[in-house]
Amino acid sequence: MGTSNSTMHAVTIPEPGGPDALVWAEVPVPEPAEGEVLVEVAASAVNRADLLQRQGFYDPPPGASPYPGLECSGRITALGPGVSTWAVGDEVCALLGGGGYAEQVAVPTGQLLPVPDGIDLTTAASLPEVTSTIWSNVFMVAHLRPGETLLVHGGGSGIGTMAIQLAKAVGARVAVTAGSKEKLDRCAELGADILINYREQDFVEELRAATDGQGADVILDIIGAKYLQKNVKALAFNGRLAIIGLQGGVKGELNLGALLSKRAAVTATSLRARPAAEKAAIVAAVKEHVWPLLADGRVKPVVDRTLPMSRAADAHRALEESSHIGKILLTSQPES
Amino acid sequence: MGTSNSTMHAVTIPEPGGPDALVWAEVPVPEPAEGEVLVEVAASAVNRADLLQRQGFYDPPPGASPYPGLECSGRITALGPGVSTWAVGDEVCALLGGGGYAEQVAVPTGQLLPVPDGIDLTTAASLPEVTSTIWSNVFMVAHLRPGETLLVHGGGSGIGTMAIQLAKAVGARVAVTAGSKEKLDRCAELGADILINYREQDFVEELRAATDGQGADVILDIIGAKYLQKNVKALAFNGRLAIIGLQGGVKGELNLGALLSKRAAVTATSLRARPAAEKAAIVAAVKEHVWPLLADGRVKPVVDRTLPMSRAADAHRALEESSHIGKILLTSQPES
Repeated sequence: MGTSNSTMHAVTIPEPGGPDALVWAEVPVPEPAEGEVLVEVAASAVNRADLLQRQGFYDPPPGASPYPGLECSGRITALGPGVSTWAVGDEVCALLGGGGYAEQVAVPTGQLLPVPDGIDLTTAASLPEVTSTIWSNVFMVAHLRPGETLLVHGGGSGIGTMAIQLAKAVGARVAVTAGSKEKLDRCAELGADILINYREQDFVEELRAATDGQGADVILDIIGAKYLQKNVKALAFNGRLAIIGLQGGVKGELNLGALLSKRAAVTATSLRARPAAEKAAIVAAVKEHVWPLLADGRVKPVVDRTLPMSRAADAHRALEESSHIGKILLTSQPES
Repeated sequence: MGTSNSTMHAVTIPEPGGPDALVWAEVPVPEPAEGEVLVEVAASAVNRADLLQRQGFYDPPPGASPYPGLECSGRITALGPGVSTWAVGDEVCALLGGGGYAEQVAVPTGQLLPVPDGIDLTTAASLPEVTSTIWSNVFMVAHLRPGETLLVHGGGSGIGTMAIQLAKAVGARVAVTAGSKEKLDRCAELGADILINYREQDFVEELRAATDGQGADVILDIIGAKYLQKNVKALAFNGRLAIIGLQGGVKGELNLGALLSKRAAVTATSLRARPAAEKAAIVAAVKEHVWPLLADGRVKPVVDRTLPMSRAADAHRALEESSHIGKILLTSQPES
């Protein structure tokens, strides 16, 4: 990714720190490299990884934009060398290695998706990261099957609200944990079958009671170490624990005896650091399997609120408070 | 499995304990239930699980024979109700839930295999457990692919000597650990590419040096907790750690951060407790994929020694000393 002489605005991080470390500043416009397009950003969305990057704990991978933002929607304004399958003016959304919190961003074509039928351009920014994360973990790695039970921790999150709908769409049964009645009610509206308030209930016992003692065939987990032992207890025979976040710590005790007697698996993945070819394969699978569900309305994006990028600090504060349900979007336009 | 009025000999465990807890005694002949056949046993083989059962730590699953022995070879002498695909007189080998250390054993037909072409009946007893364990873990769960690197701990064991050959047969690169030069030399003869003496070398460093820093795509591990952290360090990106034994303990610290940054998986399985349908699926896959390799001589059973069942105690002592290379067989015939 090179830079031209023209400028744009982006959310920069001059010094790592709290939400106010995010500074809306003038920076050079990126230039699309070979196999990339330049996208004029309509909106980006906030992911938990952005909070870590802001705090200085999660540097962008080599070659990625220095600005936060792992997804965006917008219009293609220029094509890099060798790009022939997309055209200037196409409306797209995209999975990014970074740089979504900006007015323009360069994107490898393997990470571009068309805007799904019936979804407006701004809302489309809520889709690439959650659909790619869920599809790659719950379906490509853990192979959730119809009739199986999926446990989703953080059912009210952007990941959670989409995971419920995708799992229901393929015929699975869905259990969720969340920290408030309001969030659990929303999860139920989205199709969740088993609702567990983790502040008041033991999710292992609740899940066991609700599944005739079987447990979860697949668990999608954002907590990591703090839940590792409980998650292994909550797994069914042949269960698969897919860890995608470490909000509860990095190192935990694993009971291999329990894992072995259940013939279970623990996997952990992140999306951002994957090679371009792996990202492209995931994006292609998402387009094939998830886009039709969005186009026919069986699965709907859940957006909590939309703020201008100049107020990214407020968006980060909202995510840190965990009072939101669904995704928080950031538009490149000034507040109207 | 019922019992008839006639008797046979079997290795019994009147009281759990050391090798001499094994008693060659007269017991009733089992009767084949629906979907089972009665096999007159030519030979069985010793597995590490038998040692645990002898010590009282590994009770047979419900419905299984109380005698040790997870595999056998022999001739079918009677058919239970509903069996039509096998005939009296057929030479077979079989994966068992127990009862191989006996003159006769009842076997569900889903766990029967023909004796591979070119393999004698006694030697065939060495095959069902190792081939089923390796195929189900390294290939069906961990999906080892041509060109990938497999690390096998205990390369001189029954599992190890077979895993080396099967992985080489599919075009993988094989690293092994073992505790003596003699064992490593034998592993090299069987095709192992990277030889690591775990008493003298750090397997993580040796593997890294031998793979340009990549590590192992798949690890087949019998140690469990004691090796958990090192195994995670030894994994390549997208690596899969398949644990099939817990000789080094049950609970270990798992670094989820390392797992996540490598997008790696930890799986643990055992064969004995699986439902009949899963065992049958594994045995069918073994017949399809492994039997042709045995029939054409590309893969050969490795037998350390053959003892009569009345000397099962000596066989257990040999396995406990780990001085063997390959499988230890037990024949139902008196010592000649």
